[in-house]
Amino acid sequence: MSARKQNNRNGNGSRNSLQVIPLGGVGEIGKNMFVIKYGNDMIVIDAGLKFPDEDMLGVDFVIPDMSYLFEHKDNIKGIFLTHGHEDHIGALPYLMKKIDAPVYGTKLTLGLAERKLGEQPIQKSISLKKILPGKTMQLGPFKMEFFSTNHSIPDSIGIVVHTPEGTIVHTGDFKFDHTPVSGKVADYNKLAELGNKGVLCLLSDSTNAERPGYTESDRTVGERLDEIFRQAPKRIILATFASNIYRIQQVINSAKKYGKKVGVVGRSMINVIEAASELGYLENVDDVVIDDIERVNQLPLEKTVLLTTGSQGEPMSALTRIATDDHRKVEIMPHDTVVIAATPIPGNEKLISRSIDNLFKRGAHVIYQSVSGVHVSGHGSQEELKMMLNLVKPKYLIPFHGEYRMQVHHKNVAEKLGMPSKNVFLAENGEVIEFNRKRGKVNGKVPAGKVLVDGLGVGDVGNIVLRDRRLLSQDGILIVVIGVDKQNKTLIAGPDIVSRGFVYVRESEELLEEAREHVVKAVNKMSKSKMNEWQAIKSSVKDVLGQYLWEKTRRRPMILPIIMEV
Amino acid sequence: MSARKQNNRNGNGSRNSLQVIPLGGVGEIGKNMFVIKYGNDMIVIDAGLKFPDEDMLGVDFVIPDMSYLFEHKDNIKGIFLTHGHEDHIGALPYLMKKIDAPVYGTKLTLGLAERKLGEQPIQKSISLKKILPGKTMQLGPFKMEFFSTNHSIPDSIGIVVHTPEGTIVHTGDFKFDHTPVSGKVADYNKLAELGNKGVLCLLSDSTNAERPGYTESDRTVGERLDEIFRQAPKRIILATFASNIYRIQQVINSAKKYGKKVGVVGRSMINVIEAASELGYLENVDDVVIDDIERVNQLPLEKTVLLTTGSQGEPMSALTRIATDDHRKVEIMPHDTVVIAATPIPGNEKLISRSIDNLFKRGAHVIYQSVSGVHVSGHGSQEELKMMLNLVKPKYLIPFHGEYRMQVHHKNVAEKLGMPSKNVFLAENGEVIEFNRKRGKVNGKVPAGKVLVDGLGVGDVGNIVLRDRRLLSQDGILIVVIGVDKQNKTLIAGPDIVSRGFVYVRESEELLEEAREHVVKAVNKMSKSKMNEWQAIKSSVKDVLGQYLWEKTRRRPMILPIIMEV
Repeated sequence: MSARKQNNRNGNGSRNSLQVIPLGGVGEIGKNMFVIKYGNDMIVIDAGLKFPDEDMLGVDFVIPDMSYLFEHKDNIKGIFLTHGHEDHIGALPYLMKKIDAPVYGTKLTLGLAERKLGEQPIQKSISLKKILPGKTMQLGPFKMEFFSTNHSIPDSIGIVVHTPEGTIVHTGDFKFDHTPVSGKVADYNKLAELGNKGVLCLLSDSTNAERPGYTESDRTVGERLDEIFRQAPKRIILATFASNIYRIQQVINSAKKYGKKVGVVGRSMINVIEAASELGYLENVDDVVIDDIERVNQLPLEKTVLLTTGSQGEPMSALTRIATDDHRKVEIMPHDTVVIAATPIPGNEKLISRSIDNLFKRGAHVIYQSVSGVHVSGHGSQEELKMMLNLVKPKYLIPFHGEYRMQVHHKNVAEKLGMPSKNVFLAENGEVIEFNRKRGKVNGKVPAGKVLVDGLGVGDVGNIVLRDRRLLSQDGILIVVIGVDKQNKTLIAGPDIVSRGFVYVRESEELLEEAREHVVKAVNKMSKSKMNEWQAIKSSVKDVLGQYLWEKTRRRPMILPIIMEV
Repeated sequence: MSARKQNNRNGNGSRNSLQVIPLGGVGEIGKNMFVIKYGNDMIVIDAGLKFPDEDMLGVDFVIPDMSYLFEHKDNIKGIFLTHGHEDHIGALPYLMKKIDAPVYGTKLTLGLAERKLGEQPIQKSISLKKILPGKTMQLGPFKMEFFSTNHSIPDSIGIVVHTPEGTIVHTGDFKFDHTPVSGKVADYNKLAELGNKGVLCLLSDSTNAERPGYTESDRTVGERLDEIFRQAPKRIILATFASNIYRIQQVINSAKKYGKKVGVVGRSMINVIEAASELGYLENVDDVVIDDIERVNQLPLEKTVLLTTGSQGEPMSALTRIATDDHRKVEIMPHDTVVIAATPIPGNEKLISRSIDNLFKRGAHVIYQSVSGVHVSGHGSQEELKMMLNLVKPKYLIPFHGEYRMQVHHKNVAEKLGMPSKNVFLAENGEVIEFNRKRGKVNGKVPAGKVLVDGLGVGDVGNIVLRDRRLLSQDGILIVVIGVDKQNKTLIAGPDIVSRGFVYVRESEELLEEAREHVVKAVNKMSKSKMNEWQAIKSSVKDVLGQYLWEKTRRRPMILPIIMEV
């Protein structure tokens, strides 16, 4: 019996439906995760994390709510990773703690995923299986194929899921680069072949859907770097994303060409270069990279290049420390050329500007985004999205990897190519997009959302904790401690007032003393019977103090009365 | 005797020097304030505020440290305002509380300054004196002239200070717009005349010094708005800076042309339109603006335009509330066209994106910066900076109104025109740039810096308070209350542990109970004599608890032990 017939009907005799469920990555950039479900069988594409919004104070990162997967863990046939970036593999350790399915990916992706899994204590062995683009494999009702794409990390792929109900194509993150650093262009033939055979639904990258035209080739950056390497009077310090292996390769190429040696600064950069060379994704590393930064420092400055992290102005990163003269081994010298080869991630603009200002102040010449093209995006612009649509010719489109406005622009692009508006799903996380007899519709919702990771805590920081952190961050806290006699219910100690983050105490003694007197008065006014009711004392203290402080300062610190029975 | 001779020598017979002292606005954008001092006489140019950096938690805004002015209040001959923006007049109330000099400005600038002063309780009358560009005036040793400029608010001027030592020219904020909305181009003749006579030092706007080329004319925005007004199928909602009177005028013009009525939403927008029409800076207001928004809502949608605040995604602004369906009087309708006619101020990018996403979600068509030219900058780009330098031909340049990298780019521009590197001062706030016999040098420093305003408090939030707010915002606080017997020095109550912003308490009872036990153990371990030393108890509690919580959670909440003697 063919796979098609086997899965055509489920237990109760009704036709099996095909469902596509985003658990993360739609209406947002980050925490990518799609579920493809046919009958009871599921595969998962990507398991990414996301960096916290500015109002998620103290949170380290955010992962998808994966409870839907944990509930159906026995139905999961496999986890497929499109590439090795954090927003596609960062939630993997949290998924694999509770799931037993194998993890599929290309060589570099698996290499990075393995390191990622190694960071967390997981008490079991996880089966990591290598994907070869071009090969097919069968997994339950799913026939899987993979195609190479161009993105800012090698070994990126798109994923094709053939099901009895039709074919789903997931692009991964992609651009169409005709002159990529790796020399490997995307697999246009496979895409065209898929389009000819018929694709039911395309899930496509929307990051640059607001940008008209084409994204520039990585080749242009190589040319610009060459020019900088040729002209720099002394040392070059270049910061980029640790994960951008192509950019690192281009630096190595230019260094080799101009007879310079490369030192690497910053833990994550060193890790990635080690991993990538080990797996064969970086060339000529041994020719130019010198492990020991002290040895690089002994060479003539014009013969040296430092590759560093910190292109986003991250406060603890190598470049930020160098810029503030706070790095143990690297100090800015006059005539240093600093290149920031990265685009600011929205929200980081001010941090990066501060680094640039500090570098200029120490006498460096700084080359950065708004001045010169030392970085290009890894995501395709509108013309590339059109090309993908015209190659694959899907009946339906789900724009993913984009905030809502980007999804809308992606939809507009598809409509311009003739796709009916109703065939584009601007899905929300958790929404079930169901295909039945080749027709798609939204059919219900599964649990989905954000799980906040803070230190070792996964999900123990929620709205109440965040609200408190926000309040505390604005006007600080006033703690009022009152000792009450257990028997008599009378005030026998305090009130003591302690504040943090509210006013500079030494200059506000009078204010705090007057505040204390207000509390004493409020407590004394309460009848003895009421003194039994802690809640009543507490609200009375909060009211009196809150009003007094607002009048005097126009601030609203958190007020925390603590009553101690003695 | 001429003014020149009168002031040529001071009491002790030495030649008087001319000093230019930035108290704010160099190495930063915001809180603009320059002092020009000759002998003992001073004038002040601008008194602006700045919005807080993201690490100044809870701070409302920042003003310059003006203690230098307060110390020399009797020497101040006048305060001159270049235009009515907050970063040039926002600190005026704090200055005028302690200073008695008259305030000079053009009509609109004074109108806005007067409203600003009215917001603060100042127990005296302040003399506001109107400047007419083109006229000259003498103030002590200073002969003052003024020239019209183009900027994003009408009535902007540059200031010329002739002194016995030479002429200082302060550009204010400027661009060179050959087709301005007001019809009034900058006073090129005056600038050329100054250049012919000889200018000692130019203080020039550096905001767009990183941008090559010219800043587009405001006229281009008018044309684009016209197109949008012609094509919008239903209602138009347009958000811009309340202070951008030209943009408001352009909306009124287009509305008139296409027979639409304009409703105004947002308190600050209503205030500015009232002030500007009262003073004669807005035309045709009565023809198209309808005061009552309810009445506007009753018109056919295609006949209406709403002008709103909130172009920066400010959480409490009109547009943000409309976008989240939280506005009392305005609700997004299908086919609404929303235009965001403003550039994101660095740091606001994510807030604005969120508004755009929300508007799209409610079905509006949104036109915004990265898609279409509905806003242009009010500051000149590199070619305009060159034009200013070539007209005025100064011997020295002080780039202001720019972060350090912008000042550096401004310096590079000047060097390309042939100015020697040593004639450009990349000054810091407080630095005294002294001119003597036509030669300039940095000569010392006066007090300068940031004063944080939080509610009614001016300067009472300093580094310690901010550090505490930062700590509190990251991992919250744990308060440990311990009751100790006054006589016996023994633990008689508690320890009670209360936390806020640390973990969700209901799910972490076990953790907090165990934490309590650690505290009990630590306190009990202390010898009786030590129990007398509160400081020792407190550090012991902090150490034990800090270590325990780090191990269990990898977080570092603030730990605040409070000992109560009973």
